[in-house]
Amino acid sequence: MYISVIAIGDELLIGQVVDTNSGDIARRISPMGWSLRRVEVVADNPEEITSALDRELEVSQVVILTGGLGPTKDDITKKTLCGYFGGKMKHDPDVLENIKEVFSKRGLNLNALTEGQAMVPDVCTVIQNKFGTAPVMWFERDGKVVVSMPGVPFETRGMLDLEVLPRLRRRFAPDMAIAHHTLIVTDITESDLAILLDGFESSLPDNLHLAYLPTPGLIRLRLDGVGRDADELKRVMAYNVAVLKNLVGERVLRDGDATPAEIVIGLLKEKGLTLSTAESCTGGTVASRLTSVPGASEVYMGSVVSYSNDVKSRVLGVNEDVLVRNGAVSQPVVEAMALGVTGVCGTDCAIATSGIAGPGGGSAEKPVGTVWIAVNTPSGLESKVYHFPGDRTRVVDRATTVALVTLAKSLKKDCL
Amino acid sequence: MYISVIAIGDELLIGQVVDTNSGDIARRISPMGWSLRRVEVVADNPEEITSALDRELEVSQVVILTGGLGPTKDDITKKTLCGYFGGKMKHDPDVLENIKEVFSKRGLNLNALTEGQAMVPDVCTVIQNKFGTAPVMWFERDGKVVVSMPGVPFETRGMLDLEVLPRLRRRFAPDMAIAHHTLIVTDITESDLAILLDGFESSLPDNLHLAYLPTPGLIRLRLDGVGRDADELKRVMAYNVAVLKNLVGERVLRDGDATPAEIVIGLLKEKGLTLSTAESCTGGTVASRLTSVPGASEVYMGSVVSYSNDVKSRVLGVNEDVLVRNGAVSQPVVEAMALGVTGVCGTDCAIATSGIAGPGGGSAEKPVGTVWIAVNTPSGLESKVYHFPGDRTRVVDRATTVALVTLAKSLKKDCL
Repeated sequence: MYISVIAIGDELLIGQVVDTNSGDIARRISPMGWSLRRVEVVADNPEEITSALDRELEVSQVVILTGGLGPTKDDITKKTLCGYFGGKMKHDPDVLENIKEVFSKRGLNLNALTEGQAMVPDVCTVIQNKFGTAPVMWFERDGKVVVSMPGVPFETRGMLDLEVLPRLRRRFAPDMAIAHHTLIVTDITESDLAILLDGFESSLPDNLHLAYLPTPGLIRLRLDGVGRDADELKRVMAYNVAVLKNLVGERVLRDGDATPAEIVIGLLKEKGLTLSTAESCTGGTVASRLTSVPGASEVYMGSVVSYSNDVKSRVLGVNEDVLVRNGAVSQPVVEAMALGVTGVCGTDCAIATSGIAGPGGGSAEKPVGTVWIAVNTPSGLESKVYHFPGDRTRVVDRATTVALVTLAKSLKKDCL
Repeated sequence: MYISVIAIGDELLIGQVVDTNSGDIARRISPMGWSLRRVEVVADNPEEITSALDRELEVSQVVILTGGLGPTKDDITKKTLCGYFGGKMKHDPDVLENIKEVFSKRGLNLNALTEGQAMVPDVCTVIQNKFGTAPVMWFERDGKVVVSMPGVPFETRGMLDLEVLPRLRRRFAPDMAIAHHTLIVTDITESDLAILLDGFESSLPDNLHLAYLPTPGLIRLRLDGVGRDADELKRVMAYNVAVLKNLVGERVLRDGDATPAEIVIGLLKEKGLTLSTAESCTGGTVASRLTSVPGASEVYMGSVVSYSNDVKSRVLGVNEDVLVRNGAVSQPVVEAMALGVTGVCGTDCAIATSGIAGPGGGSAEKPVGTVWIAVNTPSGLESKVYHFPGDRTRVVDRATTVALVTLAKSLKKDCL
């Protein structure tokens, strides 16, 4: 079955907000064998919403609208949908009750405008929003379903899991079986990997497809399969995944999809080791990625973000002479940072970064993008300099990913 | 003039990658008075790409395609475009030269597959990609322009600024004048703000429009205007912005668009103060946001991410008895963290966070979402407990934003 998403909101079209709801929907429908057919991002405008609905109902059995709901005047989705399905707006006391509950939990007072949110079309099933004030609305016509959901990502995710997906599963039988398997691969370029796997790809059956998703420092290699018979698909997938793993060999950093931070946390738990980090140019991003993994606190003790030289010497104990003689962006300093934080935080492993993220601070000798990365594990200390292209955001992003991947590789090597 | 974006890629439709390119394009075309009409996200599939082109060329004068270019087999955009515009694929030695340059800079070896990227349609203007290997392709038909760009956000941004936007400006005259003005507002709900501004909104001329963009802890209030006469528009905007500021009063945290981190860094520079942070549950996210602001290093010294209690006492000097007696998520501990990091890093101000981000670690007394936030400035130490709804990501996000907004409010108050 195909599902389309229409993301509504002027704020999306002027680039003030990024649509993450369609991705949240995509990841959740895939296990049911359903696919996202298309995403449209349209303005808060009745004609735009109506014509998008016409287009998407032509190709998909279910259309999920996100956004365009809220107490203020720039939200017109509800009335447009009411007209589209030939209904009238009516007051719904249950919605008002729900809004009152949400407001009292947040310690806020209800006003006339919020009360207006209790008006809903009389041609839909109203689903109470447990995470906010805008109700979810479920319309049906000619065997097709249109669901209007709030735009706040947290509310969308919550209501998808709690109500919308269970209802869709009851309404539509799961489709063709679908299977995905991801390998995380390092130490090879996308082109070289494609050449290595050329014969494998050509020999794949028609219902299997290989996709390359390169990111800095690693490539996600994803094998997708579809089939009428779930058991047969499982068997074919398992066989081809085994062949693929054999071909890629020790370049496989992880069997299964995971972020670099998840890989690191997983390996640390597996080996019973603890980690701390000392960050200069990455400014807390390595810590932020690591702590975004639930349960990270079991193995990750903390970080010293030593943005100034003063903090490098005061907190991490980097020798001031070493700092002055080599500069902060240097091998001796990044190694001293890694050793320093290992001691200060009392951990088994450490990551340290020191570089020039830009736009300022570069020189002929050490241009913007120069980053030293050190990794300390029970097997020893290693460090390397990188020259990352791009702007501040990209340099920090790449340095963070490479630092995590370096530690993951080092821990995995120790495991073998 | 209207511009449409077609973002191509199966990885977008299975939710593995989020489209940020359309937002980058939107923010860049707005100053020219051009608007993003619609964004479509479609699969790596010739029929999907062709039908999206048909639809978007009907409503927009310019269509920008992003993604679907690369050395591996799942990329078919180039051939589809070649067919769409009735051309043949040809080898372009300049593209090959550019690929060789990019590869040699990155210290990589060229292979046969990458060489294949030098094949381009003979019915387009090829623009060399200075940031990667996939060339930018510019097609024209019936006065309309289709530009195919790489999908890697860094390459898209770079080539937009360097080549594509300057060429579009030469090809199409700038349109109607457009103006935006944003105020960052705190200490009021969206509904209460809308009621406060009801009369103002009703009295706005037809060519001005007010939009509310709420995020945790603050509301972006954006006044948009369009007009044939740029000077007249400027005058009307200035008048209405002044009226708006007067109505919202001291709830205006900042005149002009900025992230909470940018507001904090700006206020610190203005007042000549330095900042450090001590993070427990936010795990480096406050530091990461602050250091994402170019020039942050002038005022931001660093952070101690004290994820474990051991680091709280060893590095920040939080008394172990206080930790044991009150637990890490408590007023005495968060205040000790703020004072501790102020001393350790030798700064004028500090932010500290300690809470339970979940999914584990909650209790009846301190459920998931409980977060203590402390802010230390030359005017004194303040702390408050919050109960944030939502999952781990959302709790960290809200705690980070609220911590930054709290410091911004405190610094602004001191300024008055």
